[in-house]
Amino acid sequence: MSRPEIAPGEPYSLRLNKLREEMTRRKLDGYLIQQRMDQYWATGFTGEDGAALITHRAVVLLTDGRFDQAANIEAPYARKVLRKKRTPDETIRELKRCRLRRVGFNPDHMTVAEYGVLKKLAPPVRLVPVENMVTALRAVKDAGEVERIRQAIRVAERAFEKVRQWLRPGLTEREIAAQLAYEMQKLGAQGETFPAIVAVGPGSALPHYEPGDRKLVENEILLVDWGARVSWYGSDLTRVLWLGSIPPRLKEVFDIVREAHDRAIKAVRPGIKAKAVDQVARDFIQRAGYGKEFNHGLGHGLGLVAHESPRVSRVSRDVLQPGMVITIEPGIYLPGVGGVRLEDDVLVTETGYELLSSLLVQFS
Amino acid sequence: MSRPEIAPGEPYSLRLNKLREEMTRRKLDGYLIQQRMDQYWATGFTGEDGAALITHRAVVLLTDGRFDQAANIEAPYARKVLRKKRTPDETIRELKRCRLRRVGFNPDHMTVAEYGVLKKLAPPVRLVPVENMVTALRAVKDAGEVERIRQAIRVAERAFEKVRQWLRPGLTEREIAAQLAYEMQKLGAQGETFPAIVAVGPGSALPHYEPGDRKLVENEILLVDWGARVSWYGSDLTRVLWLGSIPPRLKEVFDIVREAHDRAIKAVRPGIKAKAVDQVARDFIQRAGYGKEFNHGLGHGLGLVAHESPRVSRVSRDVLQPGMVITIEPGIYLPGVGGVRLEDDVLVTETGYELLSSLLVQFS
Repeated sequence: MSRPEIAPGEPYSLRLNKLREEMTRRKLDGYLIQQRMDQYWATGFTGEDGAALITHRAVVLLTDGRFDQAANIEAPYARKVLRKKRTPDETIRELKRCRLRRVGFNPDHMTVAEYGVLKKLAPPVRLVPVENMVTALRAVKDAGEVERIRQAIRVAERAFEKVRQWLRPGLTEREIAAQLAYEMQKLGAQGETFPAIVAVGPGSALPHYEPGDRKLVENEILLVDWGARVSWYGSDLTRVLWLGSIPPRLKEVFDIVREAHDRAIKAVRPGIKAKAVDQVARDFIQRAGYGKEFNHGLGHGLGLVAHESPRVSRVSRDVLQPGMVITIEPGIYLPGVGGVRLEDDVLVTETGYELLSSLLVQFS
Repeated sequence: MSRPEIAPGEPYSLRLNKLREEMTRRKLDGYLIQQRMDQYWATGFTGEDGAALITHRAVVLLTDGRFDQAANIEAPYARKVLRKKRTPDETIRELKRCRLRRVGFNPDHMTVAEYGVLKKLAPPVRLVPVENMVTALRAVKDAGEVERIRQAIRVAERAFEKVRQWLRPGLTEREIAAQLAYEMQKLGAQGETFPAIVAVGPGSALPHYEPGDRKLVENEILLVDWGARVSWYGSDLTRVLWLGSIPPRLKEVFDIVREAHDRAIKAVRPGIKAKAVDQVARDFIQRAGYGKEFNHGLGHGLGLVAHESPRVSRVSRDVLQPGMVITIEPGIYLPGVGGVRLEDDVLVTETGYELLSSLLVQFS
């Protein structure tokens, strides 16, 4: 009974290589992945309720009977251990069976309860907390990952265009959000990257608004921040719209945000500090007199989750590298009046940037 | 600047009292809630990225500026601490400011990374892992909670009826799932309790199937497992349908599952062990010759999340109490052929049970 080998050119082969290089650098002979999207990134296995133990020679998937078939199909090269209970017994057995000495884990992904049991049973195996190992590797996308993000953006954009043409006064924020999710799913999305923000009027001034019963009316702003997930990868875009005309105060704000957005995108290139890209947008908005009203970071990495590494904000220590996909989303928020945020998804290339989204920035 | 007191009859007042009784029993003078739905249950505050510190005199919400307004509205009686960064500094400051000595936390809700920092900075305050404190209290619902679950069931049932009448051959599983989510959202759902399972034919034999491109055809089974979330509380139902006629093998299975389902519901009463209710369904299915094909627990508690306490399975140690809401969902799965699962939501009453769902069990 031989297990198929992973083909050397396969994305998972390349990713496992990167992970193993990091393991070597940190003198680890094993690494325990406990987060589903980290596990998927490294092994291709999507099963919930799983963990992946990576050693220099093997990949061991710890899961349960429900995901047996999925594991066979998605990661045929991996050894499977089907757990009966959600206790760490099987994990411990595998750590010992593989004769590991130093096994890394992400302390952000292990609970105190799990650690309490593992720590007691693991010796002589030593468990070593290692921050951000897979997180940092995930920030740089390969061509296949970028292609999925492109597809997710395409689905989101096409759904948005459909919804835009169907908009009419009297629709509630909730109905618009439902329609958008529905159109995306019909176009092949697995679901939304996050629950869409749909805000009419003053609600648009709240960066984390939840759609409610407020109705779309003429001459009010409508802000939509939405994303589609396709083959596990997500998109994340924001646009503002209006029926009739935009309130003059918000038109002024719109023009400023738009210019900040365009300038920040043009600043994206490999080697630049992410906080310097934030600064380009922030400086422009500050000079226009709205510095305080831009009260969040400029953007974030995008991939298997809506917010991942790198950070693109004033406090970021990240440097942009080719293959990173980030959002650029400056905004200005006037409490009680409304807000404007414009968000696009940008790939860092070898020489500069590629704007992955292609939706018009202004519609009316 | 006085903070309004919480009215003694308020649900949060009663829940905080229960929590404080548990704290007294365990000699704790504080309890740190780190999970959003635990926090909502105890305080009414829905903010993400928050934590709630409960003492015998006060409720302190640790959150950030984005949820400032929400905290004022949802928990006006609580003291707010707006954190600038996601570091535990503010948490530590509050523990010390309240002069606490023994503060409980749920080790399943704290990461090793958080604990590492807190443990170092907390002394003289002692952090005490306490399992299942809020979890156990949440299992017993008050009248307001039951009413929300009823509403969630009503929305789910009405949406299902709409979708059922719209079903026709050629629709894909994904389209049916999208339509169902859309109808629920239009009827006022916040969203789905979980991504719906919609399976045509053999996919119905997989308890955790994801809807795909398979098309609805006549004389095949269609399994739908779905839920609506209304005011944070969820419903969870499963039905099987068919256009034309059901394959004879599955008709036999359907009748067995239906009888097991009915018998188990009638066994629900306060004081009975949850595993005894599981046994009622399991015995019947076993005697019918399908014991191995019923490969999961009979049900689970339902409320703020789709799976919560109590467990209703062979390994459960829980005893049913008035106010608990549980699912009853026996199933028989024939690999490669199809499966039947029937699921309803049941309230444990003072004298027996109340079936909260009212959807027909058989449609064709």
